Amino acid sequence: MSNANPSPSSLPGDPAAGAAIKATDRAHVFHPWAAQGRIDPLAVAGAEGSYFWDHDGNRYLDFSSGLVFTNIGYQHPKVVAAIQEQAGRLATFAPGFAVEARAEAARLIAERTPGDLDKIFFTNGGAEAVENAVRLARLHTGRTKVLSAYRSYHGATTTAIHLTGDPRRWPSDQGAAGVVHFWAPYLYRSPFHATSEEQECERALAHLEDTIVFEGPGTIAAIVLETVPGTAGIMVPPPGYLPGVRALCDRYGIVLVLDEVMAGFGRTGRWFAAEHFDVVPDLLTFAKGVNSGYVPLGGVAISAEIAAGFEDRPYPGGLTYSGHPLACAAAVATITAMAEEGVVEHAARIGADVIGPGLRELAARHPSVGEVRGLGMFWALELVRDRDTREPLVPYNAAGEAAAPMAAFAAACRKAGLWPFVNMNRTHVVPPCTITEEEAKEGLAALDAALSVADTYTTGG
Amino acid sequence: MSNANPSPSSLPGDPAAGAAIKATDRAHVFHPWAAQGRIDPLAVAGAEGSYFWDHDGNRYLDFSSGLVFTNIGYQHPKVVAAIQEQAGRLATFAPGFAVEARAEAARLIAERTPGDLDKIFFTNGGAEAVENAVRLARLHTGRTKVLSAYRSYHGATTTAIHLTGDPRRWPSDQGAAGVVHFWAPYLYRSPFHATSEEQECERALAHLEDTIVFEGPGTIAAIVLETVPGTAGIMVPPPGYLPGVRALCDRYGIVLVLDEVMAGFGRTGRWFAAEHFDVVPDLLTFAKGVNSGYVPLGGVAISAEIAAGFEDRPYPGGLTYSGHPLACAAAVATITAMAEEGVVEHAARIGADVIGPGLRELAARHPSVGEVRGLGMFWALELVRDRDTREPLVPYNAAGEAAAPMAAFAAACRKAGLWPFVNMNRTHVVPPCTITEEEAKEGLAALDAALSVADTYTTGG
Repeated sequence: MSNANPSPSSLPGDPAAGAAIKATDRAHVFHPWAAQGRIDPLAVAGAEGSYFWDHDGNRYLDFSSGLVFTNIGYQHPKVVAAIQEQAGRLATFAPGFAVEARAEAARLIAERTPGDLDKIFFTNGGAEAVENAVRLARLHTGRTKVLSAYRSYHGATTTAIHLTGDPRRWPSDQGAAGVVHFWAPYLYRSPFHATSEEQECERALAHLEDTIVFEGPGTIAAIVLETVPGTAGIMVPPPGYLPGVRALCDRYGIVLVLDEVMAGFGRTGRWFAAEHFDVVPDLLTFAKGVNSGYVPLGGVAISAEIAAGFEDRPYPGGLTYSGHPLACAAAVATITAMAEEGVVEHAARIGADVIGPGLRELAARHPSVGEVRGLGMFWALELVRDRDTREPLVPYNAAGEAAAPMAAFAAACRKAGLWPFVNMNRTHVVPPCTITEEEAKEGLAALDAALSVADTYTTGG
Repeated sequence: MSNANPSPSSLPGDPAAGAAIKATDRAHVFHPWAAQGRIDPLAVAGAEGSYFWDHDGNRYLDFSSGLVFTNIGYQHPKVVAAIQEQAGRLATFAPGFAVEARAEAARLIAERTPGDLDKIFFTNGGAEAVENAVRLARLHTGRTKVLSAYRSYHGATTTAIHLTGDPRRWPSDQGAAGVVHFWAPYLYRSPFHATSEEQECERALAHLEDTIVFEGPGTIAAIVLETVPGTAGIMVPPPGYLPGVRALCDRYGIVLVLDEVMAGFGRTGRWFAAEHFDVVPDLLTFAKGVNSGYVPLGGVAISAEIAAGFEDRPYPGGLTYSGHPLACAAAVATITAMAEEGVVEHAARIGADVIGPGLRELAARHPSVGEVRGLGMFWALELVRDRDTREPLVPYNAAGEAAAPMAAFAAACRKAGLWPFVNMNRTHVVPPCTITEEEAKEGLAALDAALSVADTYTTGG
């Protein structure tokens, strides 16, 4: 858990090189989710452990883990060495073959997935994992419709973005046939006017069952849910919710897909978030943490029952890089190092003992913090104008001037040496699972300073 | 162009290790496009240049380039070294930043793409590239419908598989809204009853224009076409076809997307196949050859006009690993090595001087060969029961017993030390672009032996 901690003055980097990289980037790189003329991407020079730095001598503590994927931190020596070794041995090979790294990665993942999810279909990332989970569910059930939640993100290929429950779906949704959105538990802004966790859980399950009944149980192939919704706000579900969803799926013959692309591989302080709720899905999607994104990799873990349906019938899906040797070697090294170094248990402990209490202490002092919620290395702060009305610090899907308070908060974080994860009116505290207690405290101190900026936008008590 | 050529007796590999890898694979790896209980994946021990070998001392000359992606051959030392170097420096980083390898890969690709396709949106592979090309076209035009060809493959995510024109689409197509298939030129089995290339071209363009007019020109966002269709049969279009499609797109305000996932980066003996036809698309998709699949990577090259539409408006698409540093470093090394070593010109020469003439000579002697077509390192042999009737050696989409003649042909190739690419009634000759003249001749000799097996299934003159 020791992260190298270079002093800013010794950071490799070169302002002229940084400017040249940025100029080439602006000329030729088309960036995701961005208005190309309105971005000014930071030129990164290097990264190690929980930190990265630019070419101008600025170092940042990364409380975003990239896009919540560097669970083992940057440049873990064992993962780097494994990639280098595999590159020298067999960098790539087609998917129709048995390859050591591919087989071993599948075995190590299957060993950790809940229940009998023991067959692994590899993809390049989370979106393709969701695409294939839906294909498996439709073929398994012979049904078409899929239910997913508002306030969710499942990826940006066609089916994955249709399932997504945030505004990133809108421009790509020409009226998606066969996808229905429902509301999941979110007590802080309860869709069900509930006032307790128990009530929220009970009402959310009743709402889901009503939706199933009125959509037609016999038409529904799958319910796709993030075990703990990620970018949408880290709404840890009440204890009874996922067992209740599992029971509804069993009652109506619906496949339960838990999306653990963001929540899996240590993020919640367990290998998989489903363990917190003692629920076994029929399909579980993963990516990101499986190899900390060192090489693109994702996949679906498949139950014995669903896999059995494709023993004699061909599975009609695939991709050139399924089970890519380099990506799988990185997964083997990441999972092995996480196990040897106790990274998952460490994430649980730092979350429970340092980050959780630290965030609650900040909330007590900063009127802009409406709620703190989370577990492990997976925390959200709702920033509000007014704690009583819970009016968000910026409106839903705000852009430009309307989003200025959150932009000011983020700028204050960066000024304090912290790279934050910001979405709408929330900041998520999602550092590497390897973060040390000292680093966590350093980050909390930076948040303290930045929240004082957020506080200036509050209006109420 | 010198490929190491180890003698089989010196190959690293170990039968016990091979058996163990296979057992783990069978227990945990869910393979693409396969009936899991009916496959027996070969356990691969290593690969170099144009060859790979198993754990039992068998070595194969790879006439499939994996799944047509190892354009630079296996384990090219400069690409391996670049991956190792980048892994040690900065294995991964989030997409919202300027990173040297990402910027440099985009620059090198933009330098080679036709026309003003100078902005590069990176994905993990070809399917996501097609997904994003369609999204760009729809947003650019404000239209929804997309036209693509029967006899095509564009990937297996939802929109990509809907565009696909082969049977892999069927199980995932619940009636795709907004996708219309048309027929493209294929003189050997002309959909237009044409008897010359000129006639085929003229009739195919008339058919496409009729389809546009009857679908409603104002409803069509894009025409998506493989510049040279790949897995569907390497039907090199007549010289006038793609310029004619370009003209139709211009006339009706339709975005032309050329899919060069398989044809790009040297496969046809040019950097991009579009160069053969002097056509500049509005969007060009790539993957595979861009870094020979050493690390998963794909992307879309975007015209200045389309990119300009996203200067002030956010582009609503993305993925965690867009412009992955390791993948981009492999692209930089691959493109640079291909340029330095003259790999593209080499592919053109070996195709024109050795493989093309060699295949035609085989066709003259083997009654099972109905047609030889191709260019560069991109060739197809149509195997037939009868050269006069052109009845395919196996029916369209045959499986099991019905496909036995092609299975026997493939087994004969492998017995002769050649790993073939086989699809329906065709074998494709798609070796690495780095293949030596001697290796090409070795492969032609193996094909000669295997075609004698195919000949035994012929019935006609």
